Amino acid sequence: MIQDKNQQRTSLSELGEFKLIEHLTKNFKIKHKSTVKGIGDDAAVLEFESKRIVMTTDLLVEGVHFDLSYVPLKHLGYKSVVVNLSDVYAMNAEATQITVSIAVSNRFPLEALEELYSGIQTAAKIYNVDVVGGDTTSSNSGLLISITAIGTLNKDEVIYRDGAKPNDLLVVSGDLGGAYMGLQILEREKEVYKVNPNNQPDLDNYTYIIERQLKPEARKDIIKLLKDLEVKPTSMIDISDGLSSEILHLCTQSNVGCDLYENKIPLDPQVISTCEEFNIDSTTIALNGGEDYELLMTISQEDFPKIKANPNLTVIGFITEKSAGKHLVTRAETKIALQAQGWKNFNE
Amino acid sequence: MIQDKNQQRTSLSELGEFKLIEHLTKNFKIKHKSTVKGIGDDAAVLEFESKRIVMTTDLLVEGVHFDLSYVPLKHLGYKSVVVNLSDVYAMNAEATQITVSIAVSNRFPLEALEELYSGIQTAAKIYNVDVVGGDTTSSNSGLLISITAIGTLNKDEVIYRDGAKPNDLLVVSGDLGGAYMGLQILEREKEVYKVNPNNQPDLDNYTYIIERQLKPEARKDIIKLLKDLEVKPTSMIDISDGLSSEILHLCTQSNVGCDLYENKIPLDPQVISTCEEFNIDSTTIALNGGEDYELLMTISQEDFPKIKANPNLTVIGFITEKSAGKHLVTRAETKIALQAQGWKNFNE
Repeated sequence: MIQDKNQQRTSLSELGEFKLIEHLTKNFKIKHKSTVKGIGDDAAVLEFESKRIVMTTDLLVEGVHFDLSYVPLKHLGYKSVVVNLSDVYAMNAEATQITVSIAVSNRFPLEALEELYSGIQTAAKIYNVDVVGGDTTSSNSGLLISITAIGTLNKDEVIYRDGAKPNDLLVVSGDLGGAYMGLQILEREKEVYKVNPNNQPDLDNYTYIIERQLKPEARKDIIKLLKDLEVKPTSMIDISDGLSSEILHLCTQSNVGCDLYENKIPLDPQVISTCEEFNIDSTTIALNGGEDYELLMTISQEDFPKIKANPNLTVIGFITEKSAGKHLVTRAETKIALQAQGWKNFNE
Repeated sequence: MIQDKNQQRTSLSELGEFKLIEHLTKNFKIKHKSTVKGIGDDAAVLEFESKRIVMTTDLLVEGVHFDLSYVPLKHLGYKSVVVNLSDVYAMNAEATQITVSIAVSNRFPLEALEELYSGIQTAAKIYNVDVVGGDTTSSNSGLLISITAIGTLNKDEVIYRDGAKPNDLLVVSGDLGGAYMGLQILEREKEVYKVNPNNQPDLDNYTYIIERQLKPEARKDIIKLLKDLEVKPTSMIDISDGLSSEILHLCTQSNVGCDLYENKIPLDPQVISTCEEFNIDSTTIALNGGEDYELLMTISQEDFPKIKANPNLTVIGFITEKSAGKHLVTRAETKIALQAQGWKNFNE
């Protein structure tokens, strides 16, 4: 919400499309042996020898997925890479390459795109992926980012959504609901700013949840941790649309039921205190908030000893026969049907 | 420009995002052995054994790349696949998989997206590619399509842009300028329609060039032809931005010059007659028109006997030393510097 009125503005039309791509990607380094040819030809050339690859794609649209009045472009670039890589890790793969396409209106100066690409570059560096291609074009309205990610793994390492078995434990990484509550804080500050642009917001009590919203991380570390612990989940999915929605996906595709325990759902203290401040139920937020990019998995009971002492993994329930249904077991020990109320993009 | 006012309209918000993807892709069949897992998990899983893969991506934006007042959605779906596959063929690869992401505003009913996807499906069938993933989201303005294509080939088959050598022949497939002149006809008819909506346009004299604009084909057949003829081009690129722009790319990346002969540039009679009608120079159109999706390549002189009788391939010039420069040799046999005036997306 703080803008430097004297910032440099170079018009995109001064460069033209080819020079623009060249300019934005000139500092991108190729690090993977599997990248034979990166940016600069009709297509990238990749070689994975005997490995399998995974491929996933996501679109982020201004006004739908992000609001530039409080999302810094650098963070947006970083996040747009992370949300894609999260899907790669959810297959138990190592992310190796991405392509980045953007549609952008002339109201963005070159310097804004440089910010966006510096966030993309930072994420590519931290997660060790090569940017091997993309497309840059104008749009008549806002900014749109389309990223496709490639990852690699051995044949026997792939983890699908459909492998959960009755009695498997339902396990989640990290904690939930933070990204959604961070968004509530940012939206509230935006309204305050509209009324009084000189108000200086005090966000000290919300740093964790705001970071969860603006600069989330994909759980590459969990994929490594599981390998180190010698645990191969029976199914896995990343949590982008809210815990309940993802559990229902796992159960439907695996043809099983589940019992999820409300009192086991991991919540950060900032989520709890902010929910109290907003007078909303923290369980509802954890179940339906979305954008947490944690990993939800099922693991065999015999692997429990390997994970039980680990602070990164929390057992939140177990898998049942399909006929038993999909339930949330509340703190009051009543069972209620699990329902998805995740992000509905097309609601009017 | 002809609309059925009684068409069925199902709102996208009635379905929600998951059901929408499911609905639109339910008829898509997986045909390639390399597609281990298609749509339905966090990512697709692919396996290419010892082969190399190529990867390319394109964005098509309403109001920039297409105008829905005269582009049927089915054709648009078809074309959006074709423009991507063209880049795969330009690497000398076989196209095998694509992901399709769309951002669309609520003003589009479900039936419109079904039309779009039926065009995508038709192209996937004709070009034998599997649709293995994608993303569907709302946008605040128009329609945007982002496609990423994967292709496969043997290590020694890859053809880059940088392999052209002095004395190589400059060769192009098909004919040029048609797509651009087709666009001029469609734009003219749009203006006529605005003035008199009851006017019935007579487009019989423009069928070929309109098809070149609305429903272009990628030259998969040329890749096969070159294999059959046992000709491996020294460099190759697809013509999306106009012949001169692509020749300059090849020359710059190969560090060579060229002589392009104006009187050798292949033109369809409809291009010539329509250029006369519009009183514009057909060479200018062939050089700068764009969207022809033909293949431009350089081949060694010793391969000339293999291609000289083939109606699909035309020799339009030859490669020179870099110091000789890049020239167009006009019909009047004067040499002028070759310049690119292709599509400038960011012009205001």
